[in-house]
Amino acid sequence: MTQWTTKRRMNPITTDTLLEALRWRYATKQFDPTRKIPAELWKALESTLVLTPSSFGLQPWKFLIIKDAGLRERLVPHSWKQRQIADASHLVVMTVRKKIDTAYVDHLMAATAKARGIPVETIAGYRKLIVGDVVEGDRSKISTEWAIRQAYIALGNLMTSAALLGIDTCPMEGFEPAPYDEILGLAAQGFTTAVLCPVGYRADTDKYASLAKVRFPVSEMIEYR
Amino acid sequence: MTQWTTKRRMNPITTDTLLEALRWRYATKQFDPTRKIPAELWKALESTLVLTPSSFGLQPWKFLIIKDAGLRERLVPHSWKQRQIADASHLVVMTVRKKIDTAYVDHLMAATAKARGIPVETIAGYRKLIVGDVVEGDRSKISTEWAIRQAYIALGNLMTSAALLGIDTCPMEGFEPAPYDEILGLAAQGFTTAVLCPVGYRADTDKYASLAKVRFPVSEMIEYR
Repeated sequence: MTQWTTKRRMNPITTDTLLEALRWRYATKQFDPTRKIPAELWKALESTLVLTPSSFGLQPWKFLIIKDAGLRERLVPHSWKQRQIADASHLVVMTVRKKIDTAYVDHLMAATAKARGIPVETIAGYRKLIVGDVVEGDRSKISTEWAIRQAYIALGNLMTSAALLGIDTCPMEGFEPAPYDEILGLAAQGFTTAVLCPVGYRADTDKYASLAKVRFPVSEMIEYR
Repeated sequence: MTQWTTKRRMNPITTDTLLEALRWRYATKQFDPTRKIPAELWKALESTLVLTPSSFGLQPWKFLIIKDAGLRERLVPHSWKQRQIADASHLVVMTVRKKIDTAYVDHLMAATAKARGIPVETIAGYRKLIVGDVVEGDRSKISTEWAIRQAYIALGNLMTSAALLGIDTCPMEGFEPAPYDEILGLAAQGFTTAVLCPVGYRADTDKYASLAKVRFPVSEMIEYR
């Protein structure tokens, strides 16, 4: 198991580098089907997915990476016929657990105890807090929706991370969840499709790449109190 | 109005820099109340919020930045008594529009026409697509939830962006939306509180900063098809 540590010091990037990447990013309408993401870069994006923060650290998701060309073509008609599904280097289907049960919470407790080298009994309070909210409390009433929200954190993280590596993405809500769940066999596993993100490289011919980005004025979007 | 362009070339960062920042990041439990984010860095984070991608580019949010110390103290009891609300350098309250109406879509159309120097009539198809989905179609039935999902993209983007700049964050779902909406006067504006994110610098005494990060194995979280 990979050891993730929060201890390391880090060297910040400049604000120019960050904002340049966020301005460069756009919802790619046309991917270059001949350009594949190099293995080392893809590996890093895989790590960014796994490192995505989630409520209570529950990671209520599974990221499906669809490589099979035939399967991707089958998904196109259920994706508003958008070609990015088939043409992008990688297709990320973000799926989530419809329910969180105590077994899954215990799975996290075991992983936590192992990663931190502590007895699982010492985190009983943490377990109780999660169960009281997500398994039995208020959050359990909206558990699928709660899990989908977490997937959108992953989406935000993935788009920003990819842009910083010079890789294009296209966030996609335009798909039919039911056929996706059926084709991907998710129902039997207790999962459902939350959102999609084709990842790859923009085609030279994508006219959307050079359009001015549209944002409402900062004064409308941000308010100080 | 700031001009955002997608045309610029950009210089990618390395995968090491990216992953180092994501590993360094953690949900900060204790902020150093004496350390404030320098104005230039905060300005960049403000831009990352505004640059957040959203479905159809609708930006169905307003980001409230709470500076007033008294107001922040008033919010603490409605935030599971978590001190990050009061102690972080900046408190970002992500609020969203409960409904998207045609007037708001037209507001986006006007901004788009202006930014791109085109007559608004030329994007009538784009307008129709949005209205058919978010104002009158399937998405309109879950419009508040849909907007909250978009706010979670902003949350993911903000946490990753901040980490890359060496700034700490704490995503927070542990709050009571109703008192937040009332105290911040959101109901009258048709907005509601989606999620919170205190932003600032970790305290030296935060023992959570040095705990091993817990993630399920990559093999459980990512599946290739």
